[in-house]
Order: sequence, then C-alpha cells, then structure tokens
Amino acid sequence: MKKLLLLLLFSATAFAQIDRMEPPFWYAGMHNPELQVMFYGKNIAQYTPSVSNNIVIKNVVRTENPNYIFVTIDTKNVAASDLVFSFKDGKNKVAFTKNYSLKKRREGSAQRKSYDSSDMIYLIMPDRFANGNPNNDNDKSMAEKANRSNDGGRHGGDIEGIIKNLDYLQELGVTAVWNTPVCEDNHSRGSYHGYAQTDVYKIDPRYGTNEDYLRLSAELKKRGMKLILDYVTNHWGSEHWMYKDLPTYEWVHQFPGYSQSNYRMTTQFDPNASKIDAVQCEEGWFVESMPDLNQSNPLVLNYLTQNAIWWIEYADLDGFRVDTYSYNDKAGIAKWTKAITDEYPYFNIAGEVWMHDQAQMAYWQKDSKVAAIQSYNSYLPTVMDFTLHDAISSVFNEDKAGWDSGMQKVYDNFANDFLYPNINNILVFAENHDTGRFNEIYKGDFNKYKMAMALVATVRGIPQLYYGSEIGMAGDKGKGDGDIRRDFPGGWAGDSNNAFTKAGRTADQQKFFDYTSKLFTWRKNKEVIHTGKTTHYVPQDNVYVYFRYNDKDIVMVVFNDSAEARTFKTARFGESLKGRVSGKDIMTGKTVNVAEEMTVAPKSALILELN
Amino acid sequence: MKKLLLLLLFSATAFAQIDRMEPPFWYAGMHNPELQVMFYGKNIAQYTPSVSNNIVIKNVVRTENPNYIFVTIDTKNVAASDLVFSFKDGKNKVAFTKNYSLKKRREGSAQRKSYDSSDMIYLIMPDRFANGNPNNDNDKSMAEKANRSNDGGRHGGDIEGIIKNLDYLQELGVTAVWNTPVCEDNHSRGSYHGYAQTDVYKIDPRYGTNEDYLRLSAELKKRGMKLILDYVTNHWGSEHWMYKDLPTYEWVHQFPGYSQSNYRMTTQFDPNASKIDAVQCEEGWFVESMPDLNQSNPLVLNYLTQNAIWWIEYADLDGFRVDTYSYNDKAGIAKWTKAITDEYPYFNIAGEVWMHDQAQMAYWQKDSKVAAIQSYNSYLPTVMDFTLHDAISSVFNEDKAGWDSGMQKVYDNFANDFLYPNINNILVFAENHDTGRFNEIYKGDFNKYKMAMALVATVRGIPQLYYGSEIGMAGDKGKGDGDIRRDFPGGWAGDSNNAFTKAGRTADQQKFFDYTSKLFTWRKNKEVIHTGKTTHYVPQDNVYVYFRYNDKDIVMVVFNDSAEARTFKTARFGESLKGRVSGKDIMTGKTVNVAEEMTVAPKSALILELN
Repeated sequence: MKKLLLLLLFSATAFAQIDRMEPPFWYAGMHNPELQVMFYGKNIAQYTPSVSNNIVIKNVVRTENPNYIFVTIDTKNVAASDLVFSFKDGKNKVAFTKNYSLKKRREGSAQRKSYDSSDMIYLIMPDRFANGNPNNDNDKSMAEKANRSNDGGRHGGDIEGIIKNLDYLQELGVTAVWNTPVCEDNHSRGSYHGYAQTDVYKIDPRYGTNEDYLRLSAELKKRGMKLILDYVTNHWGSEHWMYKDLPTYEWVHQFPGYSQSNYRMTTQFDPNASKIDAVQCEEGWFVESMPDLNQSNPLVLNYLTQNAIWWIEYADLDGFRVDTYSYNDKAGIAKWTKAITDEYPYFNIAGEVWMHDQAQMAYWQKDSKVAAIQSYNSYLPTVMDFTLHDAISSVFNEDKAGWDSGMQKVYDNFANDFLYPNINNILVFAENHDTGRFNEIYKGDFNKYKMAMALVATVRGIPQLYYGSEIGMAGDKGKGDGDIRRDFPGGWAGDSNNAFTKAGRTADQQKFFDYTSKLFTWRKNKEVIHTGKTTHYVPQDNVYVYFRYNDKDIVMVVFNDSAEARTFKTARFGESLKGRVSGKDIMTGKTVNVAEEMTVAPKSALILELN
Repeated sequence: MKKLLLLLLFSATAFAQIDRMEPPFWYAGMHNPELQVMFYGKNIAQYTPSVSNNIVIKNVVRTENPNYIFVTIDTKNVAASDLVFSFKDGKNKVAFTKNYSLKKRREGSAQRKSYDSSDMIYLIMPDRFANGNPNNDNDKSMAEKANRSNDGGRHGGDIEGIIKNLDYLQELGVTAVWNTPVCEDNHSRGSYHGYAQTDVYKIDPRYGTNEDYLRLSAELKKRGMKLILDYVTNHWGSEHWMYKDLPTYEWVHQFPGYSQSNYRMTTQFDPNASKIDAVQCEEGWFVESMPDLNQSNPLVLNYLTQNAIWWIEYADLDGFRVDTYSYNDKAGIAKWTKAITDEYPYFNIAGEVWMHDQAQMAYWQKDSKVAAIQSYNSYLPTVMDFTLHDAISSVFNEDKAGWDSGMQKVYDNFANDFLYPNINNILVFAENHDTGRFNEIYKGDFNKYKMAMALVATVRGIPQLYYGSEIGMAGDKGKGDGDIRRDFPGGWAGDSNNAFTKAGRTADQQKFFDYTSKLFTWRKNKEVIHTGKTTHYVPQDNVYVYFRYNDKDIVMVVFNDSAEARTFKTARFGESLKGRVSGKDIMTGKTVNVAEEMTVAPKSALILELN
C-alpha cells in the first residue's frame, strides 16, 4: 500500500512539473509586500498551492489556460529566507513542491540614487559596439546566427565588449550607460536590436549571461558610473514563450492577432479622437513581430512591474529608459511607473515619448499640469526632448535665419520650458538609435558637430550621446535602421580601424573624440550646468547667446550659426554678465574679453566660464 | 465791486479753460461705481476740483504735467443726473465749472448678450468696403485726403457704406460685423487702417460721426445682427493729442521715445527669457508711428478701461476684438479684460494672440490651465485659432499627404483642443486683414475655397470671414498690406463691377457668393455645429472625416484633399454614425448613402446632416 502511494505521488510530480516560476526569486523587505509568483507547467491550475514559513497566501488566480497559476503571497515582515511552495492535488495531497527564495536586499537599495542632469548618458546597441567574447556569437538554442555582412543581422557585440571598453567611455566623459535591451530575443531575423524580447528574465546568450550583466553593473559602479536598463512594457517578441501559450487571450491585444498601430499618439489625449483610432494606436502592434501587451490586465501589469523591479534589485540598476512609453495603456503604464518609483523614490525613468510638440511631451512627465487638465499623471520622471532633436536636425544648415529658422528654432524650443514640471529631467540628444545620424545629416561637418555637442552639453537636462557620434560615425536612416547602427570600429578583432584607442583612431576620429571628451569631462563637475538656471536672448543675425547660472557661477554660451564671423556688443547681456568682463573658453583655456564687444567665428560655439 | 469780481472770475475762466473732459459723460448704476474723469486744460492742475449733488470725490491725481487732473468720484447709489464739476483757485474761489452727466443705462445693459459660436463674423476694413457718403471722404481737420489710386491711402469707405450694404451681409449669412477701428486716425499717411488712433472718443470724420456709428449699431440690432468693436489697448497713433502733451512721461513706453518691438511674444511667459527681451517685446513699439501705451500705469489702464466701457454703453456694442493682445503689459491687460467682463459678464472679447503653438495660444484664454502654471489669468474669453489658419494656408495644395501634411495637419490642430479652457470660444478663419488672401494663395481655386469654408463653418468655434473672400477676392501679402485690403467692387459709385448685387456680380463672384451664403445661412440655426461635440478620425489617403453631434443631431463632414476621387468603407465611423445609413448633402439637398461605402470627389468637402 505504501509503495503504491509513493508510486502515485511520484507519477503526479512527474506529470505536473513546473517549467517556469517567475520571478525566479524575490527580495525581503520591499515597499510593496505583495508578491505574485507565476507558476507555469502543464495543467498546473488543477493543483492547490500553499507556502511554507507561515506566510499568508493572499490570492490565487487561475486563467482560462490550465498551465498557469498566479499565487500572491504577503511578504510583510518576512525576513530573507528560503520558502517552499507546495501544490496539492484533488485528494489534498502534495503533488510536488518548488523552492523559492526571498533574498536580502543590498544596503540602501530602496534609496538608491539614479541618473540625473549631472550625468552624460551613452547609448549603446550592444550587438554593434564591441565583440568582447567571440565564443558567444552563436548559440545553439538561438535561432539567428551571427552574420556581420548582414546589416540587419547579428554582428556579435556583447556585454563583455562593453565591459572591456569602460576606460574608453570614462575617458570620453560618459557617466551612465544606456544599452538597448539585452534580454533574450530569439527570432530568426532582426533580433539584434533586442526590442522583441522572448524571455525577460534572461540575458540573451549571445550578449552573455545574467552574471555578465551583473558584472557590467558592478564594473560601472566601481568607476562611479551608472547602468540604465532599456525596459519594454509595450510589447514582446512573437517568439516569446508565453505568447505561444498565452495565460489569457487578452494577455496581448487581439484583433484577433496582429493589427498595426496607427502610431497617432495624439489620440491618447485628444478629446476629439474617435475611440477606434485611440484603440488602434494603443492596442495596435508596433510591428507584426511584436505582440502588443495589454497593461490594463492586472496580471500583465503585475508581471511587468515585478520583472522591472526584479532587474533593479538583481542587477543593482541605476535607472530605466522605457521604450514606446506613450503606446502603452495610459492608466496601466502610470500604475507601472508609480509602482517602481514607490519602491525606489529616487529612481529615474526616461520614457520615449516621440512627439513634436512640447505640450504633448510635457503631458507625459510626472505631475504635468498639462496632463492634470485630464486628471492624468504618468508618474514618469523624465521625458525626451524630441522637439530639440527636431531643431538640431536642421538648424545647423540654416546659415541665414528667418523669423523661425536658424538658431531661433533652438531658442523657440526652450520658450515652452514652463510646460515641463521638471525641467532638469529632460533627455537632450542629437541622435539616437532610431534617428538619422547627425554626422550623416551634416556630412561630417566638424564645426556643426561641435555646435550640436556644445548645445547638448550646456542646455538644461540630461545629455545623451549615441555610440559613435564622438568619432564622427555616420549612417543614413533612409537606407534602413542597419545603416544608423553600424559597428563601432575596433569592436571586432581584426577591424582595420580601432577607434577605441588613440593609436587606432584616424585623425578625423581623434578630432571628434577630443572635442567630445574635453566637453563632457568639463561638464562632469559643473553644477551650474547640471542644475543652474537659464537666461537666453533672442538670436540676432543667427547668433544665439544664453547663460547658465547659479549663486556661484556663470557660464556664457554663444552660437554663431551664420557663415560669417559676427561681432556684437555685449551690453545687451548686462543682466546676465552681472559686471563680469571676461571669461575662460573651456576648450582653449584662453581668456575672452566680454566687456564691450565680442567676435565669434562662423559656424562655431563658444563656452565661457565667466571670471 | 460786484462788477470787478465778475470780471476777475471771467478772466480766470477764460485763462483756465477745459479743452478735454474724458469720458465726456458716464452712466449711472455701473458695477464699478468709481469713475475717474480726466480734465485737460492749461495749468488745470493748480485748481481744486469739487462736484455737485453730494457726490464724494474719492481721489484726485495730479501728474508732472500741470495740464491734467484726474478726479475720481463715487457714483454708487447716484441716479442718472446732471452734475457740475467746479474748480477753485488758490483763493478758494470757483474759477470755472464744467457740466457732466450720468446717463441712464439701457435696459439690461449689464446682462447684454454677445457674440458666440452661433455667429458668423464678417470682418470689414471700413475704408475699403463701401463709400456710402462721398461727402465725408475729405475733412478739413484731417491731414490725409482721399486718394483711391494709392493702395496705402484713404479710399473713402465709411460707416454709411456698411449700413447701406446690410442686406448684402444678411443674405451672405453674416450675423456679426467686426470692423477695424473707426476712431479718429489723423495721420498724414497710412491712416486708413485705423490702428493708430488719435482720439478714442470720436469716430473719424471720414467714416462719419459718432451718431453714424450708433446708427450702424442700431441698424444691425434691428436685423438681429451684432456689432464688434476693434479695440486697441496696446498703442495709439503718434498724432494722438495726448501724446503731444503727455500726462506723464511714462504714459507711453520710452526708450526714450521709439524703439521697435522684437515681436517675440514667447518672452511674455518663457521662464528663460531675458528681461531685456521681454521688455523689448512688450514695451517696444509695434511701429514707429504708434507710441506703446503703458498699461502698468493705473491712469493709463483706467483711461483705456473706461473708454472701452464707454463705447459698449454708448454704442450698445455686442463685443470686442482686441488688437495685439499679447503685446500689452500682461498684468495690465488682464485687469482691463476683467474690468470689462466684470461690468458685462456675458460680453465676448476676442484677443489677437498670433502664435503658432496651441499651448501658447491657450495660455491667453480665460481660466487657462496652461497659464495657471504661472498663476496667470488673462480673463480673455476668446482667442484666435492661428494654428488652424497656418494649416488652412497650405494644406489644400498638399494633394499627397505625408505623415504630417495634407488633412493630417488639420486633424493635428484639433488634437490639442484640450489645452483650451473654452473650446467654443475660438475664432476660426481662413484669412484676415493681416494675412495673405486665401484666394491669392490658392489662385482662385473654387474647390479649395469650398473646402476651406466648409471647414471654417463646421469646426468648433466662431467662424470669421474677411470681406471679399465670399466673392473670390485675392490679394498678395508680399506686395504689401494694401494688396490684401483692396476695395470691395461696387462700393464706389462708378465701379464697373458691383459685387453687392446679383446683377452686378461676375459669374465667378456669384459662384463663390452662392456657396458661402448657402453654407453660412445653413449654419445659422445649427445648434449641433454651434455647441455640438466633435469626433474626428485620423485621415486616410488624405481624406478627413469628422462628426459634430449633440443629443439630437449628427452632422458628418468629409474632406477629400487628394486629387483623385476616393471610395472608402464607412464601418470605421460606426461609433459616430450610430446606425444612421444616410444623410442629406446640405449643399445639394440630395440624400447620400453612408451605410457601407462612400465615394467623394477629388478636392471636395461634403457636409451631411445624417437622417
């Protein structure tokens, strides 16, 4: 009889094995004590879960798919410990068990600092930056193999490649690294960008291991640098294991299956928008290979929230960038953002809100008065200055300024700064992985590059560089995304040009690098730039002047976007000069007299620390 | 002895005569009981004023100019009556007196209705519309004489010309007339536009008399039509009598004297703007011939407020349009606007806020949440939709729509409607006296004209037509203001073409007129258009569809801006069609089936009242 029982028990365990348990572990002492563990296994829903250590199960959710069960436990006042989840069968017998662990959090984890306007963020596409470990270029379990000759294929760049080049980044003046997603993206093509994730708890083996990612985080921390994870709440890849066996039909937006977004983000707040358009924007898929997640479903939302928090805690992260932020369910993404910032009050999250109107971008920032018109609050700390990017992409070719062209376009961008509730939490950039390359648009014109960098480095907000800008890398968006995501020269053994080292750089690359490095190294400790106020002056003759100032320091920034040298009187800037008569050119170290008159070279920027 | 006294008294009176007393009379029972009467006369400040009827003098203000004295009396509980102001000399003897009158207000004056979204406003430049009284074309006291061959000169149009053509306006569907300023503008050139006023209590004799203006108001009222006065708070003309003997140096903005505005209106809210730029925008003069009034001076502000109220009460006005609204002292113009709407709670005022950004325009509307960010409230009930005007000026030439061109530009304009606190109080227009003529931009293309008018007539807000649009008048802003302000054909005796009458119109003019008249006559009683809600659909293939609806009615509006006929399924509009299967084309009266599919002609607009 005993033998028979044992045999039966053994059978049941074998039958209903747990294939996935997510989050795979958790942490004790979180702000939100509720933890919802998802168990996945054939017919698991027919079992009844319980948990050890006198921990209370608050809720058990089963869906129409019997292979899932969601168990919510209360971890309040539970110390770091090992737990056991048990699953009983219909005869109230334990059919199988699963060990679980509540780990101890790092000291000060909840109060962790994050990136801010004192940082310079460097955006890396890991597949295209440096191949630090050629052994992981291909992986048996992954569908797509490395093929560097395909500009839409995997090239072999990895986490090790980033780690190996931290000296380079540090020399450049980088203080924070944002890399595009590195979780598993197991598709047969186009997987290199990582935005179609197939397992959000696991680093893609072609980038390395979870441990490699933790090592990257730790190595950055050693240097006082920060790691920003690119989180994608809006969609997963169509090869995501869960999409192949959906917990619930509505886990993703169904039309049924795929229907493309209309990308009309204004529908998300436009009171005149039709419901059908608003739904098509939000629920439509970004592309066919990316099923659109339904954040209005509490199970989905909680899965995404816990996954995000898990990465922060596990990889000791310093911040997030969130992809396609304004394509998410509006209420859902606000809850997600609030849940994370409730856990980590100082954690910064920059959302991609790609609009061409300041009011529309300001709408999405935390405590926006614009969004408050509709009683909405996204809780998103940082938005991106896409309108400044719009301006940067054209103004340096506008030698002759009209009423609203040339530097006036840049000036006008800042006129609406009052719409943003937090003006220092704006990401400023000349390019990113989705835009035309600056050095392509401007045909590698070094003067124009210097002007753009001087602007990005000295205006309010958080500057962000895209890998390769600093060595003059070009790339034509018109030729496809591959062209704006070329390999960083020197990242691959055998590269004839190695821009990671001074010896390996061409003279032209060195010129770009030197300027960029000097500029952002200077910026590192300039509180007056990080948090100072701004006073700017209406451009005259395409010369734009602004001042950044605080109680201690004044920095004067001058742009001459015209094709001629410009001489002008400085009396007009009296309220900002406050009697100062000279300043130090931060690039040359030379003293520049500003007492009465200045002359600025054509197509140039001048940054002066006033004496 | 008696004789001697009389003689002395007579001498004093003769010496200190009062040249001006403003307001020339006032009204009893105003909401604000304080009335500040300005007396102007040589050395008048040396006398001590008093007033009859036991009325209390609350305040007497003397300035550095001895020729002015400002006497504030309290009219609370004072019935309509005749008063006497007496001025005593240093020996406490009455040197001279001045009769004053507090008149009885019209019944219901304070609660007067105003214009709103049920109206269609017709904008007239009186000098260029119709010369109803050739006898007043020249006036001995006025510097500039009529010269119709000079496109920047006076052409002789007048108030009588408007009165004589009210039948025409009524047939056109006009319900409110806004004419550019008609007060005295006594300059030797360019006086025809009236914005450089020289006496704001007196109609320019070349337009007629004050009584003529009152007659225009009364004639309009008889027809159920409204009169809107174009008020200019920002500046007067350099020949204004007061500018020649300023009450106080700071009555106008002094640099000293003239300095031109930089026209950068963003400086008025931009937190980064330099003070010098903000001051230059606001205090700089619009043009050299227009001294910029200082509304931060309480005497100036009060003068402008009382003058405005005087005209409302005196000429029984139905509304204001305010010129260069955002160039005024920000606090001052808010006080002015509030004072007027405190007197007349339902009085509408449309301010010219010529910006190219909805947040910036919405800033200036009463109770704006955008302005509330800076704790500002202008109290201005109505703003103008200049961004819609921007779109209208280009989209009908954009046959092939891109991401943000063609009808998408129009759609996008309405996406920010939530920024406006009162969306029905937005003036919508295809052109005005300061813009290029629509029929010039589009080379008289009737199809494009019909699309623009259909748009202006059916979107939210208050439609405004510029005289001559309706007969296809053209005019090139590039050739100067004169060209966009041509004489209305038929307004002058001997005009070979008389577009005021059917018999006199060319076939082309008749075509334009018929469409416009039919459209706006239809609009007159369409509450669903006046105050209905809007649902619009993202344009597809340059076809833009929106619905105006209320509890009773649904109007469907379709624009095909492409150069080909478009056939499309209507299922997409289900939420707006609400099961309706057909509609009546308001222009042809024909029934159009909307059950499944529709075909719309190239470059056309279709307005359907759903059955």
